Order: sequence, then structure tokens, then C-alpha cells
Amino acid sequence: MQTSEKSDTDIRFVCRGTFVHSTAEEALQILEDALLGVDSKGKIAFIGEGKDLQKLSESFGFCSSAVTQLRQHEFFMPGMIDTHIHAPQYSYAGTALDMPLLQWLNTYTFPVESRFQDIEFAKKVYTQVVKRTLRNGTTTACYFATIHTDASLLLGQIANDFGQRALVGKVCMDRNDGVKYYRETSEESQEETYRFIKELLNKKYPLVKPVVTPRFAPSCTETLLAKLGEMAKNNKLHIQSHISENLKEVEWVKELFPNSESYTDIYHKCNLLTDKVRAQSRLRFTKPLVKCECLHKIRQTVPDALQTIMAHGCHLSDEELVLFRKTGAALSHCPNSNISLCSGVLNVRNVLNHKVKLGLGTDVAGGYSPSILDAVRRALDSSKVLTIQDPEHKTLSFEEVFRLATLGGSQALSLDERTGNFKVGKDFDALRVNVAAPGGPIDLIQSEKPQILLEKFLNLGDDRNIVEVFVAGKKVVPFSEP
Amino acid sequence: MQTSEKSDTDIRFVCRGTFVHSTAEEALQILEDALLGVDSKGKIAFIGEGKDLQKLSESFGFCSSAVTQLRQHEFFMPGMIDTHIHAPQYSYAGTALDMPLLQWLNTYTFPVESRFQDIEFAKKVYTQVVKRTLRNGTTTACYFATIHTDASLLLGQIANDFGQRALVGKVCMDRNDGVKYYRETSEESQEETYRFIKELLNKKYPLVKPVVTPRFAPSCTETLLAKLGEMAKNNKLHIQSHISENLKEVEWVKELFPNSESYTDIYHKCNLLTDKVRAQSRLRFTKPLVKCECLHKIRQTVPDALQTIMAHGCHLSDEELVLFRKTGAALSHCPNSNISLCSGVLNVRNVLNHKVKLGLGTDVAGGYSPSILDAVRRALDSSKVLTIQDPEHKTLSFEEVFRLATLGGSQALSLDERTGNFKVGKDFDALRVNVAAPGGPIDLIQSEKPQILLEKFLNLGDDRNIVEVFVAGKKVVPFSEP
Ligand SMILES: [Zn+2]
Ligand SMILES: [Zn+2]
Repeated sequence: MQTSEKSDTDIRFVCRGTFVHSTAEEALQILEDALLGVDSKGKIAFIGEGKDLQKLSESFGFCSSAVTQLRQHEFFMPGMIDTHIHAPQYSYAGTALDMPLLQWLNTYTFPVESRFQDIEFAKKVYTQVVKRTLRNGTTTACYFATIHTDASLLLGQIANDFGQRALVGKVCMDRNDGVKYYRETSEESQEETYRFIKELLNKKYPLVKPVVTPRFAPSCTETLLAKLGEMAKNNKLHIQSHISENLKEVEWVKELFPNSESYTDIYHKCNLLTDKVRAQSRLRFTKPLVKCECLHKIRQTVPDALQTIMAHGCHLSDEELVLFRKTGAALSHCPNSNISLCSGVLNVRNVLNHKVKLGLGTDVAGGYSPSILDAVRRALDSSKVLTIQDPEHKTLSFEEVFRLATLGGSQALSLDERTGNFKVGKDFDALRVNVAAPGGPIDLIQSEKPQILLEKFLNLGDDRNIVEVFVAGKKVVPFSEP
Repeated sequence: MQTSEKSDTDIRFVCRGTFVHSTAEEALQILEDALLGVDSKGKIAFIGEGKDLQKLSESFGFCSSAVTQLRQHEFFMPGMIDTHIHAPQYSYAGTALDMPLLQWLNTYTFPVESRFQDIEFAKKVYTQVVKRTLRNGTTTACYFATIHTDASLLLGQIANDFGQRALVGKVCMDRNDGVKYYRETSEESQEETYRFIKELLNKKYPLVKPVVTPRFAPSCTETLLAKLGEMAKNNKLHIQSHISENLKEVEWVKELFPNSESYTDIYHKCNLLTDKVRAQSRLRFTKPLVKCECLHKIRQTVPDALQTIMAHGCHLSDEELVLFRKTGAALSHCPNSNISLCSGVLNVRNVLNHKVKLGLGTDVAGGYSPSILDAVRRALDSSKVLTIQDPEHKTLSFEEVFRLATLGGSQALSLDERTGNFKVGKDFDALRVNVAAPGGPIDLIQSEKPQILLEKFLNLGDDRNIVEVFVAGKKVVPFSEP
């Protein structure tokens, strides 16, 4: 039995039934007939066994008749974490997948993203993407917005309004030669990023935070990258970008940055690869390399911040993975996107062997699906494709991919003290799953064990099976009536 | 404007709106504001343009106010064709995907299939699979059942009752060394196949026909294969089996059939590779190689019959593909299964270049999904994986895969005179798709062209978008109340 320190916690609700989640030791841990209590702050107050009901209800002062009992074929699992999603691109999700990355950006992405200066258009799309991902069980999303500060702030507001845990990034790009209508000057990019961060933090949203977001090395000058690195460091902010997605891009980066040893080295030199642990020991000693107003400290009250997450990494060398490990930077594996744009196939097993933190991402709209369930399936497919190519490759199990979708994602975003699995003291971010939901996509012929129920849900389930979604103890799906 | 010969046809209903389908010349043909009339036999009586309403209503004698007008975001497409699905395996769909083919069969498949001697269990699972595939838009399914004749007949009855077009095969396997509880003697297999065919044909189901079904070469003696070849030829029946799915299987087949030049050659020597065209010219001249009661002719009234469809073919040589072409035998591409069991990646482009007929299959439960929409997505993924491996590979377009899911499937089953696209005289097998169905999985930000609507549906849609399913002019989904 795990309980929080004080048993005089105010219990908001208690659930009883099967809970499935991952731990550092076990990719899939199944708690059958468990009792889980959530306190008034949305945190997990205790996790016990059904047989301890009497004892727990006495120590935590809740009425045992008020316990919600899961039905047959139901279980709770941790909310899923989308570590990489482009909110504006949701407007063309499911289309435009007929060309490789660099042409794709110029042909489809930049024209659409430039429309987000229109705040009404932004409101429509951002409301759709937040609602859709919540329905799909994404309790935490790490968003790219566009270069537009006000629309990016609106995305933060919408995520907050619907109760999604989110990191939101205003995109920075001061180099975009072919596309004059969609780029910033270096100064604009810095000033607007500063404004974005300051205004978003001033909102004091409990679950929504800014993330410093250079689009990717080819669309940023080295000066801008260095300034963004300093801004993130001085303000203990998250950082997100893209790396080594496609071979043509990797070649182009070599041409653009002839003095860097590797793609990873560019970000590293600009202080863009880091995590919380390293940041705590380093921040005291470093001085800003460059000075400008935006490098001043804004505030320091973001507890989980300072973590780099880079999308893709399909073509990283082992040396580059070692640098990821050393700096604590994480990777977001976006298998749907990697296949859909013919970018490459990330060897996740190799990344895990290098002990690099890794989560799953949809990469909407390079990936067409706004569901981490799809990312789970495509991650398994990608691993199986590697096994087809090399029978010695150790295929990922569905349990391992389940961990990537939940605990792995929380670690990759340094949010694992808050979310990712069921531990006393963490926020209750959870999905109530009914594998046999009426009208849903799954037929059961008989009762099945929780492991089989989870496997069926991961392979065949959809939002119809996700009957309730909780973020920080608050039920956010079904949506409350307006 | 296309119309049937007699314009005094009795029109059952008329629809107006967007129709999308494939033709030999065009992978995607879009008919906007089209008018399509279905006669009392469920056949397409005319296809015209909206502006011809007056003229058509006069010649065909229907009231123009009785025309069903599609709504915004809606279109009709041909019903999808699942050219390879194991009905009994639906009971464990979405699980048991952690080992390669041959172990998978012994560990999961044979124990489950052996349960289908229990007719009540069979009824439950077969009802689920027919209803589920219909809801998913599979208007035609080519089913493997089990070795049990009565349960296989029941599958035919259930397909007929729900109005699905189906080929149903009682599985033949007189060689299964490790698994005594699930095999037949050669005589049983022949006699029961004969009984199965005779009894199923005697039911006179309009849309459900038998298909001769040796499981695959390793589970059949050469004697049995030859007798089944004769039975199919003498009775003009369809044939289905598996070929060249996995490299271990290919090796094993070489050991079991040391005198055959290739896997394909085994089936060819046993008269198991054929199609209607070749059959018409050959049947007159051949004499049965072996004699037994089961080789007698049963009846000859099946108009579309005699077509071989072989599942997988991932590891076929070009010489074997040439033999497929020469004999007219078709392939069923089951990409979900091929990836899920790490079997291989079929080069569909190469198959098409060899002019071998090819359709898509789910291969439930080696493939976990009972939806051809999933097969469309996995076929695109597989083609993109081949492009990642070799940038010279010409990736399949979504339009081409759409054709495989509809017209291609009908050709692979020699049912293309009846179904597969919208042509006057063909049966009306169709899906009414609403891309913006309320509560569905797709968000639209604006009106989109039919091509974009189709692409969104293929990538993101599910059964919620398939608001009506028609087979031979009869609305089979939503299911009528019992
Ligand atoms: Zn991205
Ligand atoms: Zn099969």
C-alpha cells in the first residue's frame, strides 16, 4: 500500500478496479482490484488493495459507499503523452503526404501556418486540436504553434480552458529563403519569443507552460539559436526542435553549418541540449554568451522546466546519441510521420540502449493521426520493419511501447514527477478505458485478463473506448456542457 | 451518361451527389453532382449528371422528388473488398502478435480454430465478424473458416443473413504433425470439402459461394492438393490458399516438396493456379487426374467462379510472378499481417508491373484489424518503407491503394463483372461516407474537394463515417432491427 504522508488529506474521489501502468522496472504493471484515492489538489493520495477498503476509508476519511467501481472490461491507465505535435497543421491532417520533408514544408506547411496571423482561424483550429487530442486520451501535449505570438498565446489559453497539460511553443525561424511571407527577422524572433514567454507565464495557468521553439537548424541562424539557448537557460525553460529527420535535411544542415561536427553538435554549441539535472548544476556557473533584454530572467517558478526534446532523430549517429545522453536531451519518436513522409525508420531499441530519454509523438500533420494510440501502433510497426530487415533486431514489445506512450513521454518532457504513471504524490492523469464500450470498435467473445484487454485496446481501440479522461484529478472528457 | 439497355427498368432508388471510384484507366475518378439509379434487382440502371434529372426521370419513370440528395461532406464510394480474412481468428484479433508465423500458428491459431467444432461458439464469433466487417465497409469478404464443415456452412448462412457478399472456405489440412487435435485425414478432407460445397451451393444464397481452401502447402499432402485442384476445376470453383508469406515457411516448403521448382510450382502442378478466362478454354480438354466421388461435377451455375487467390506472396521471385500472370492467379496483399508477424514486405509495385491481379486483405488475426481502411493505410506504409529503403522505388499513391481496395479486389476475386466500381449493369455495392459525421473521428475546418475528402476518410476515417452500406442494392448497414 502506498499513501501520502498526511492521512488527513481531503479526498476528492476514490476508484476501485484494475489499474495498468509502467514503472522503471516493469513496462507493464497490473494492479487488480486496486483502490486509488485522489485528493482535492488532483494528486494521488493513496494506492491500495480492495481488501484494504475499510482501513483506507478510516485513515483518509471517505465513505466507502462513495467509491467508484470499474465495470467488467474496464481499467484505468495513465493519460498518454504526445511529445511532439504541430497544432496549426491539424487543419490539414490526413492529407498532403505525397512528398518528402523539405518540399512538403514549402508546399503545404508554410502556406497553412502563415494563415495563423488570423486569430479567428487560429481559434477554430486550436479548439479542434485540443478537444480532439483530449478525446483521444492525450492528457499532456507538447505543441509547436506558429511564428505568431498572439495565436500561440491563444493555444495556451485553449489548452488551459479545456484542462489539458501542455507545453506551447511560438515557432522561431529567421531564415526561410524561399518563403518571404513566413519568416521573422532575428530581432523579431527574439523579442516575440520573450513576449510570448512572459505573457504566457503571467497567465499563471497551472498546467500550461511555454517552450522555446526554434523550428529546426536550417530555418534559424546560429545567432538566433545561441540567443534562444541563453533565454531557455536563464529562464529555466523547456526547449523543443527537430533533428535528423530526413537524409536530404541532414545534408543541407552540413552545408549550412560547415563548422559543426554534426547536426547534434549545432544545438549543443548553442546550449540547446539540456535537462533539469544538468541545468541545476550548471546554471550557477555560466554567464550569458550574448546580451539583450530577452536574456534577462523572467521568473523562476516553473518547477519541472528545462528539458530539451528533439523530434525524430532517425539518422543520428551513435556518437550523437551519446551526446544526447550526456546532455540529458530527449527524443520524440514520431513513427507515423517518419513513414508518411518517407523520412526514415528510427531504431528505438538503439536509442533505449544508449539510455536516451524517449517519448512518442504524433507530429501532426507529417503524421496524419492526432492519436497516440496510432503512434503506439506505428512504433510497433517500425520496430517490426527493422526486424524484417534484420532478424537479430530485438523487436519492441507492446508493453514497452505502452511505457513510451506514458512514462517515457513524461520523462522525455521532465514531467515525470507530475505525471506518467500512478504513484502517490503525482497528479492523477488517467484514462478510464472500457474495452467493450457499446458502439465501439472492439468485440469481446469472453472475459479477458487485463493484459489482453490492454493489448486489444492498444491495437484496436479508439476514443469510443476512452470513456473518461482526467488531468490533475479533474474530469476533462466527456467535455462539460458549455 | 450511361444507362442500361431497357429504360423500362423498375427503379428502386436514385441518389444524387458525389461518387468516387476507380476504373481501369483512372485510379480515382470523381463524379460530381452525379445521378445514379438502382433497379429492383440491385443493379446500377443508370449513371448521369444532375442536370439530366428531368430526362432520366422520364426515361426511367421515377419521381424526381424521390431522389436522395447527399449532404455536404458526403460521397458514395464502392464497397470495399477483403480478399483474405480468417473468420474464426477474429476471436483473438488484436492480440498474440509476438511471434513469427509458424510458431504463431501452433501457439495461438490451431488451439482457437479447433474450438469451432462447437457450433455455438462458431455462431457467436461468426456473427461478430460478419457484422463488424460490414460496419467497416467490407461489402465482399473472402473467408477462411476452419476444418469444420458445419461451422463453415454456418458462416455462409450468417453472411447471407446479414447481406454480405462472401466466398467461404472450409479449410483443408491433412498434414499437421505437431497438432493431432486439429487435422483431418486426406479422405475426410476431400469428402467434407465435397459436402461443404454441395450443401452451400444447395442453399442457393445469391451472394455467398464456396471456395476450395487448402490451408497452405505445408499443411497438405500433394495428393490432397491435386484432388482439390481437380474438384475446383470440375466444379468451376474459386480457390484460396497462402503462399510465400515468411522465409522460414519458404524453406520448409522446399524441404517438404523437394521435387518442385518453387512454392508457386507446387500449386501450379496441382491445378490450383487458375482463373476464369483460362478455365473456359481449358476445361473442355482436361480429364481428372484422380478419381473419386468428390471430383464429380456438382453444378455449373456459378457465373463468376474459378479464380485462384493466394495470400501474401512477400517472397515470390519474378519467375513465380510470371507464373501467376500466365495462370491468371491473383494475390491478396495483407500488409498489417505481414508487418505484425514480421513476415516481410510485399513489393506491390513489382506485382503490378508483372500485371498480376492484386487486392487487399486484412488477414485477421495475423493482421489485427478487421477493416480494409487499415489495410489501405498499411499498404501505403509498406510502400513508403520500400521507398525509405530504396529512393528509386515508386511509392504507391493513395489513389492507387484505393483502387486496390475496391476494383483491384473485385478483379482478384473475378467478381469484377458484379462489383468493384460504379458501372451500369453491376450490382450497387456502395458506402455512403460522411467525412464530417457527428461524433466521428474527423474534423473539417472548411469545405474540401472530393479528393481531399476521400484522402481524409482513407487516412483518418472509421465506421462512424460509413453511414450506410449497400450490397447488391440492399441497405445492410445500419443493421435492420431484429
Ligand atoms: Zn515536427
Ligand atoms: Zn491468412
